[in-house]
Order: sequence, then structure tokens, then C-alpha cells
Amino acid sequence: MKAYFTRAYEISASHRLHTDELSETANRETFGKCNNPFGHGHNYRIEVTVGGQVDTATGMVMNMAALDDAVGTSVIARFDHMNLNLDPLFSHQVSTTENLSMVIYKLVAAALESAKESARLVRVRIEETENNFFEFSGI
Amino acid sequence: MKAYFTRAYEISASHRLHTDELSETANRETFGKCNNPFGHGHNYRIEVTVGGQVDTATGMVMNMAALDDAVGTSVIARFDHMNLNLDPLFSHQVSTTENLSMVIYKLVAAALESAKESARLVRVRIEETENNFFEFSGI
Amino acid sequence: MKAYFTRAYEISASHRLHTDELSETANRETFGKCNNPFGHGHNYRIEVTVGGQVDTATGMVMNMAALDDAVGTSVIARFDHMNLNLDPLFSHQVSTTENLSMVIYKLVAAALESAKESARLVRVRIEETENNFFEFSGI
Amino acid sequence: MKAYFTRAYEISASHRLHTDELSETANRETFGKCNNPFGHGHNYRIEVTVGGQVDTATGMVMNMAALDDAVGTSVIARFDHMNLNLDPLFSHQVSTTENLSMVIYKLVAAALESAKESARLVRVRIEETENNFFEFSGI
Amino acid sequence: MKAYFTRAYEISASHRLHTDELSETANRETFGKCNNPFGHGHNYRIEVTVGGQVDTATGMVMNMAALDDAVGTSVIARFDHMNLNLDPLFSHQVSTTENLSMVIYKLVAAALESAKESARLVRVRIEETENNFFEFSGI
Amino acid sequence: MKAYFTRAYEISASHRLHTDELSETANRETFGKCNNPFGHGHNYRIEVTVGGQVDTATGMVMNMAALDDAVGTSVIARFDHMNLNLDPLFSHQVSTTENLSMVIYKLVAAALESAKESARLVRVRIEETENNFFEFSGI
Repeated sequence: MKAYFTRAYEISASHRLHTDELSETANRETFGKCNNPFGHGHNYRIEVTVGGQVDTATGMVMNMAALDDAVGTSVIARFDHMNLNLDPLFSHQVSTTENLSMVIYKLVAAALESAKESARLVRVRIEETENNFFEFSGI
Repeated sequence: MKAYFTRAYEISASHRLHTDELSETANRETFGKCNNPFGHGHNYRIEVTVGGQVDTATGMVMNMAALDDAVGTSVIARFDHMNLNLDPLFSHQVSTTENLSMVIYKLVAAALESAKESARLVRVRIEETENNFFEFSGI
Repeated sequence: MKAYFTRAYEISASHRLHTDELSETANRETFGKCNNPFGHGHNYRIEVTVGGQVDTATGMVMNMAALDDAVGTSVIARFDHMNLNLDPLFSHQVSTTENLSMVIYKLVAAALESAKESARLVRVRIEETENNFFEFSGI
Repeated sequence: MKAYFTRAYEISASHRLHTDELSETANRETFGKCNNPFGHGHNYRIEVTVGGQVDTATGMVMNMAALDDAVGTSVIARFDHMNLNLDPLFSHQVSTTENLSMVIYKLVAAALESAKESARLVRVRIEETENNFFEFSGI
Repeated sequence: MKAYFTRAYEISASHRLHTDELSETANRETFGKCNNPFGHGHNYRIEVTVGGQVDTATGMVMNMAALDDAVGTSVIARFDHMNLNLDPLFSHQVSTTENLSMVIYKLVAAALESAKESARLVRVRIEETENNFFEFSGI
Repeated sequence: MKAYFTRAYEISASHRLHTDELSETANRETFGKCNNPFGHGHNYRIEVTVGGQVDTATGMVMNMAALDDAVGTSVIARFDHMNLNLDPLFSHQVSTTENLSMVIYKLVAAALESAKESARLVRVRIEETENNFFEFSGI
């Protein structure tokens, strides 16, 4: 009997979509105004879903404080109020929200593992704007 | 060709997270301020998803009035404006939203079965606050 | 490593739920006030989800402008500010949101295919009101 | 010591923006796709605000059931799942949401007056879509 | 040149609507299911609005951390995860959201005054459910 | 008989809160993590409210396309996907959302005036995050 717990976090960050693998023109065509040289920003709403057996004593899939600790240390402290493009994890890949969702997935999965949590990470879903959503499930 | 229909309901209820299986200190550590002795409350937004073949005559997975009837009788009438801890279903388990989602899943599944609905219950998802979501799929 | 991109669109349309396969009384019983002879309307929020490999050069599952183009041409231009019942696709089936989600799924899937997009359509989900959601996955 | 109570209602309706006072071309220029001859529709979210002294015995500005009764009888029963253009109140004025907000204001104000409510109507605000809001205060 | 800053906070609390000034029957008629003897609960979203001159050096009406401090100490710490009816401020008045908004207004106004803030409290608005809003402006 | 029309727009932008009038330490104390040297970003949801007589022929306070044109030219084209700090309007004032709301108010008011619109600008309200709102009314 597995249940899922999803908790939403929010970070504000700036970024610029640009890759040295493409020409200036191709960058502009591919990324549009997101390629603007001086960057822009978003409030990213990040939904983290963990799943597992519900503990019969506590009635929980995972303690909320433990999840806050894992996400806070590995993700919020690293990206909130930062320029994503300056993070080493984005030195060799574009800071699209697809890539951001994969990066966050790996960071949270590692944090849960090192905390020896029995619940496992199931999905990271990011709302970039109220109309654009990105999702990565590690599969 | 299967489609899914999700309908959201809202109940207000109070509860307290506490279990006799743990000491006072362990209760406090596990449940934090949710262990406050005088209870607190939530507006629970409950999303019920049913799935099935779309009826070629009516173009529907399931009649909305029939779903309202099943959820209204089995869930809303039972828990809305109530103290969850006083319900027999929570006399031997903590009233966490994980457990509430499983309890509601079983109640709605039974109501649909006794109404001989061809659509089957697929998922119950509860928004406890705007940042915390719990989900149970019966699998 | 697959990721998913969901983008939301909104259309306003009118419709009436009615089928010649049922009697007047059965229509009224089945569709309730949605069977009102002069029609009514909705703002349909349509979420289109595509999935695929993240392109290593662009960091994207699919270019947003290309998705807007596919959905705009095949869906928005066809249904926005229209009466759904007058569309040939609804001449032989009721304009329920279940059927609308299947119709939109097929239209977008065909548009993506003719644009030779590598990302594939995964799901169409429609919010009919803030409490009613319909979903079709083509599986 | 005055307080305000706002309660939201939702109706679905169809309409068409068109006036005989303008030529076909001017209608098209003024109303754009809202002038489409076969109509379209919306979910209108209607927020009704009443204000007044808080009753010292009940702690309320106005009883919620009484407000539901006034709005239900005068507004919901009249417009929900209807074509606004067919209502006599729109036979001599365009069914824009500006006009709808004024029409609803007058209907609710009259209903409260005939119910001899001490709270007075302060404002009617309508969400036509998630980005367009209309408001009338009767002042 | 005055500007306004509104910040939203959320608390979870339980309460029961009941007054000794009315008979059991009148209590039931007035408060409906909110009079249920075992209480129920809400997530209250509390919007606090302050207004004032924008400081030319900082560009702010009021420092956000100072507002969090004032509201956190006077309101959140007092009511979050509590039973409102047990608070002395509700020993002689019903814990309706009208009264709660006035109580919170006075607590925050006093906290801002004792912190010698130049910005003044303008309004407290509480979302009790997604359809019910209460507002007090101290005028 | 005056009515109000509010329309919401969204821009993404980056900024940094910093002023040369304060020391490094005072900047850090005043602006917290918003003073981070490499900037961060937001999705700003901008609500523009205009008010006026409802035109008896069109039933409108102001034509939506005309408002889109005024806001699009004066605000969206200028700030969307930009770094606010690089705009001349923020060379002598901090790019707080209080200041941004005043800047936008002036730009839209001027655009409406030069378009000779009879409706007048009433308010600019900006959602910086889902919990922080700023408002300027020009009074």
C-alpha cells in the first residue's frame, strides 16, 4: 500500500538560455527572447514527490521536516536568489527548465539517500510560469 | 479508449496528530506543532479521479451527479465539519493526510461498487495546504 | 532520460449536451442543465503534455514556439470563440469534455506528426471548471 | 466597526457581443472574435461583497445562507447554463461583462433589500477569464 | 506618493461557532454545520496590507523582515495550529472570521506601533475557504 | 455609473536590490538575499485597472485591444525578459517592486493619455511572488 507525498517549494532565480554549440543567430532562433544577453528571471515553483509505504506508527510516508531539510540544503540554498548560469552544474548545459528539473532530481535523490530515508524520490515537477510546466521522473 | 474524469470536493475538518504507540516526547518530535493537544484544522481539497470507457451515447466516463452522490454520502457527510480523530476509522491510526487519502479511497471505491458503476476509482489526491499534497492509487 | 513539457492554453466556447440517441426526457436526466436548449459556455484550460529525450544542444524536449504553432493551428483556431456543436467533429458525438479531450488529442498528435517533431504527445488534460478535469492519454 | 464579507459564485453561460447600433464591420472591429455569430462561452466567477456592522451576538456581517439565497434566486437561477443574449435584460444592451456586472449588482441589491438585510451590497466583481476582471460598485 | 505592500500568511486552526447568548436551536439555525460540537478547521490565508511613503533610499514601504516579525510574533505564534475558541480573545465573542479579522487587525496594528514602524496597517483580509473572504480596514 | 476593468499581464525579468547610498553591510542588512551580487528573477504578474463610464453603444469601459496595445508598447516590450537594473528608469532608484509599480503606473498613464483614451488608469498591482503584492494608485 503505497502513498505519495508532494511538497512545493519556491525559488527566485535569473538565467539566460544560450549555448556555445550554436551560432548567435541559431541561439536567437532557438531561444527567442530567453536568449536576451542580460538575462531574465523566474519564480520557479518546485514540486517534489516522494513515495513509499505509510509507516503504521506515524501514518506518514516521510517526515515533512526531513524533506524540507533535504531540499533546503541541496536545492534552495544552492539556487534561490542566484543566477543559474553561474552554477558549475550549468557550465556545460543550457539552464532550461528541463535541465533544471533533472539537476534538482539528482540533487534531491542524493540528499535522500545520504539521509538514509526509506521513501524514494518519484518526481520533480517545476512550474516555470503559470502556463509552462516541466517534469522529470528519473526513468 | 479510456478517459479520466477528476472532480474536486472540499471539506473543513479538525484533527490532531498523536499516537499512543509513541511517548509524549516522540509524539512532539514526530508531529511538531500538529501534535498540539487542542487540535487544529484544514480545508481539505479532495480530488477524486475515475476512469473508464467513454460511453458512446452519453460521451461520458461517469455521470457527475452519480459521482457527487457517491462521494457526498460516503465522504462529505461523514467528515465535513467534523473532528477526524473522533471517527472510528481513526481510532487505531493517526489522522495524517496519508491515512485520510487511503480511508477516502476505500470509502469511495465501496460506494462506486455498491452503485454498480462501470467506471472505476483510479486515484484520490488531497491538498492539505496549498503546498502539501497526498495521493493514493490503491496499488 | 526522458522529460515532459506541459503547456496550458485557454479557449472560450459554447456548447450544448444533447444526443438524438436519447429521448428528450433521457437527455434532460442524463445532462441536467447542460441540456438547456440555448447552450452555455466555458473557458476551457487545455494542458498539452509532450515527452521525449532532452536535446543535448538546446536542453529542450521540444521548442515552445513549435508547440504553440501546432496547437494554435489545429485547436485554438478551430474551437476558440466557437460553438462546439457546430463543428463537424461533434456532428455524431456529444460535445462533452471527455470527447473534446479525445478530439484535441488526435488533432495535436496529427499536427506534431506532420511537423515531424521527435517529441511525442503524452496527454491532453482539460479544466472545464475549477473543479472538473478531464484527461485523455491515447493509450 | 465595519467589516466586509465576500463570497464567490460561479456560473457558465454563453453570449455573443453584437449591437444593432453598429455596422457589421464596426461590430467586428469593436468586438473581435467575441462577435463570432454562433456565440462562445465563459465560466464567470462572480464575487459579491457585502459590508456592515458585525452583529455582536452572531459575530457576522450577514448570514451566509441568506446571501446564498439572495444570489441563488436572483442571479444563479437566471443566468447559469443560459445564453445571456436571450435574457430580456440584454435585449437593449450588449452582454459585455461590464454590463453583466451592473445587471448583477442591481439584481442582488434588490434581493437584499426585499429580504430586509441590514448588510448592504458593496461591490460585484466578475472574473471572465483568469486574466480579465470587471467590477461595479454602484457609486 | 503612497504605495501599498500586501503579504500573505497562512495558519491552520480549529474552531466552533457557538454563543451562549443564543439557545441550542438558534445556534444551530444561525451557524449550521459550523456549530458542530466537536469543532472543525480551516487553513486561513491572511493578507496583511501596509501603506506609506516609499523610502527614497531603500525603495520600500516597509521592510519585509520587519513585517514578518510583527505578524509572526503577534498572530502566527498565537493562533497557528491552535483551537481559536480557547484563546482569551474569543472567550466573549464568537470565533467567526469577521471577528478573527478584527482581532488580527488590532494585534498587528499594535505590533507595528510598538516597533515604531512608519508604515501603517491598512487592511486585513482573510480567505477562509477559496470562496469566502473577510476584510477589516479599521475604519 | 462607473465600472472598472482589470487585465493581468505577465513579464519575466531579473534584478538586484542594491543602492550606492548605503554601505555594503547596510545593503545586505536591508535587502537580504535580494542583494545577492549576481541577481535573481521573478515572474511579475501585473494587474492594470482602468475605470470610467461604460460606453452605451459598446458596453465597454475601454477596448481590450487598445489596453493591450498601450501596456504592450510601454511596459511589456520594455521590461519583459530584461534585467530591470539596466533600464535608465532604475539608474537612480532601487528596482524594488514598489518602485516598479510606480514606474509602470506612469508609463501606462502616459500611453493612455497619448492614445486619447477616455478611461483613466486607476491602479497598478503587481504580484511579485504568490505571497507578495505591491500596489500604486497615483494618489
